[in-house]
Amino acid sequence: MTIFEQRQQWLQNEMRKRGWSGFLVTHNVDIYYYCGSMQTGYLFIPTEGEAIYLVRRSLVRAEEEAAAAVEALGSWKTLGERLRARIGGDAAAGDPLRIATELDVLPVQLYMRLQTALPGAVWEDGSLLVREQRMIKSPDEVTAIREAARVADGALEAVIPHIREGMAEFELMALIEHQLRLRGHQGLMRMRAYNSELITGMVASGASAAVPTYFDGPAGGTGLHPSSPQSSGRALIKRGEPILVDIGCTIDGYLIDQTRTLVIGDLDPELQRAYDVAEEVLRATEARLQPGTIAEHLYLLALDQVQEAELSAHFMGYGADQVKFLGHGIGLEIDELPVLAKGFKYPLAPGMVIAIEPKFTFPGRGVVGVEDTYLITEDGYEKLTVSRDGIRRL
Amino acid sequence: MTIFEQRQQWLQNEMRKRGWSGFLVTHNVDIYYYCGSMQTGYLFIPTEGEAIYLVRRSLVRAEEEAAAAVEALGSWKTLGERLRARIGGDAAAGDPLRIATELDVLPVQLYMRLQTALPGAVWEDGSLLVREQRMIKSPDEVTAIREAARVADGALEAVIPHIREGMAEFELMALIEHQLRLRGHQGLMRMRAYNSELITGMVASGASAAVPTYFDGPAGGTGLHPSSPQSSGRALIKRGEPILVDIGCTIDGYLIDQTRTLVIGDLDPELQRAYDVAEEVLRATEARLQPGTIAEHLYLLALDQVQEAELSAHFMGYGADQVKFLGHGIGLEIDELPVLAKGFKYPLAPGMVIAIEPKFTFPGRGVVGVEDTYLITEDGYEKLTVSRDGIRRL
Repeated sequence: MTIFEQRQQWLQNEMRKRGWSGFLVTHNVDIYYYCGSMQTGYLFIPTEGEAIYLVRRSLVRAEEEAAAAVEALGSWKTLGERLRARIGGDAAAGDPLRIATELDVLPVQLYMRLQTALPGAVWEDGSLLVREQRMIKSPDEVTAIREAARVADGALEAVIPHIREGMAEFELMALIEHQLRLRGHQGLMRMRAYNSELITGMVASGASAAVPTYFDGPAGGTGLHPSSPQSSGRALIKRGEPILVDIGCTIDGYLIDQTRTLVIGDLDPELQRAYDVAEEVLRATEARLQPGTIAEHLYLLALDQVQEAELSAHFMGYGADQVKFLGHGIGLEIDELPVLAKGFKYPLAPGMVIAIEPKFTFPGRGVVGVEDTYLITEDGYEKLTVSRDGIRRL
Repeated sequence: MTIFEQRQQWLQNEMRKRGWSGFLVTHNVDIYYYCGSMQTGYLFIPTEGEAIYLVRRSLVRAEEEAAAAVEALGSWKTLGERLRARIGGDAAAGDPLRIATELDVLPVQLYMRLQTALPGAVWEDGSLLVREQRMIKSPDEVTAIREAARVADGALEAVIPHIREGMAEFELMALIEHQLRLRGHQGLMRMRAYNSELITGMVASGASAAVPTYFDGPAGGTGLHPSSPQSSGRALIKRGEPILVDIGCTIDGYLIDQTRTLVIGDLDPELQRAYDVAEEVLRATEARLQPGTIAEHLYLLALDQVQEAELSAHFMGYGADQVKFLGHGIGLEIDELPVLAKGFKYPLAPGMVIAIEPKFTFPGRGVVGVEDTYLITEDGYEKLTVSRDGIRRL
């Protein structure tokens, strides 16, 4: 049985507990997760029986790739009866269907079309269940993330010798992206949340890194224009200011995320001290990275540590633009579970992959910090990111 | 009055005709279109009175950028009463509110939260209205698209001398992206449709360009992995096969789209002939690019021309994977109105910007074709793309 079929079985088991009839998977990333193909269409996983992938295009590629029976999507008019036929049993005899789908991402127009296609069906929100399943990575997923980490490190090392005073932020970002792509980065990094966008990461220097953004993360950046208001802009890199290189890449669908702070010359002592505290927070967090630790506790612990260091106002952004987390799950998307934030009660468990990113923002001066990505193991953790620790002085 | 306020006024006028109370703009691209800022939040445009931008983050940047009153989003519990207060008049006295939003992109979960926040409100689908308004570009939008065209051409010319036999497709794409980014490309190209993704364009060579994809376009590409199944893959560029370079970029939020066919040496006569027909289709289309021409007629005309040339089976993809259009509107997103396809009855009008892309797919051999982007003017058209016409022999 392939890993994709194992995932379908896990989901079927959970649906059985809930009394659901099946799951209509609509989101490209989730479709890939459950069947290994990302062609345009819908994957229907009935609670009993075999999954069917209804594909608009490309049918040929879906047939080559998918761990599911593949059929042409065909007319919407027949969609309802085809799904009912797949469920069979009592449902076919007239019981109301209870069908789950991903209401966190599904657009309303499409939802309404589905409601019309399946009159009388009760729709359940299956998005949290999918996100919780995806929180625990299988060995093949970890392999891809590990390879992505190697690629990110290779690109960073290739670019470092070319960083110089007077280089624009966007020139540095262009170099990094080029090196990532040459090493196999797929060229996009997926986010799940509505309106969320990510352009390789946050690469910015000095004051402009501390400019807040719409992006739900601790670092900012002016970006090139109000229509793309994050990350690298036209500011020139100067001696003695922190260069924040928060980058990721995608290999075989899976993301890595890491941050290193670079500087030409030396940081001023206040920023250097904040950087050192960021490393201490990361070390203290690592000491508790093991099965059973509650996700939110890691955030609360970091808050205490930062308050002790009298840096609370600068932690994870500044003032009203602070974000309220220390890290995030990562996999096919960058905003996965668990989030290390208040209200997230998940106990850490083997197979979770989490990016942890303590950072400090100083308006007008810059952002310093560090980020590594970790796999939770049976007895602790494995650091997946492989870039050299510590500030990089150029 | 800024262009953003003019857009709000146009929308208010249309809402008045429909008896709507206001428009809650939720999508980042639409928010930018109506107020010039893309921070995280909601832009509410009441039918009467002034727009208000309720911002989660960054409030500071929204205040600097937005052509609207800016307030902190604050608690969802007060959202309903704040929107009601903004509408004022009869609505405040208890009439049911009729509020439009973009149901083509809004996720169901968020829609349900809005329904709870505004009990009794009737929700209207305003997405088509927004897309129709955005179909007609203002001079500032055309300026950005023109600049994007200049950047795309500059990148193509910079890369052409480096193309050689044995280069992998993804290496060529990495070079192109690097040159685009150095010239100011914002690094992402937005699409509106659910699950749609675009990674700079479709750059592929020979047989692999003819591999169909999930992407709703005529060219394909293997991509690097089933989790990113489009555009450049690991195939090596060979002498005598068509290299399809279908690329775009984003400047000041606006996209350009263009395609050129390149070849090291010469194409075989059958592919060369198909390329020539693609150019003939484009010339025949240009001859009808003027106000009043119905969008779908251009597609139907092309179908006739292609049938005449006995190339119907190869037009815009092959067999079951053919797409059913000749071109598409382009602006802040690449999938804008009008579409040159059956059922699109829009008469062309000054200010429309349309990418037109006749292409022919030969399984096992490659894709040939051409694409330029045009502005419809008072008396015809202006070609916005500036790359040299014709096949490029290397």
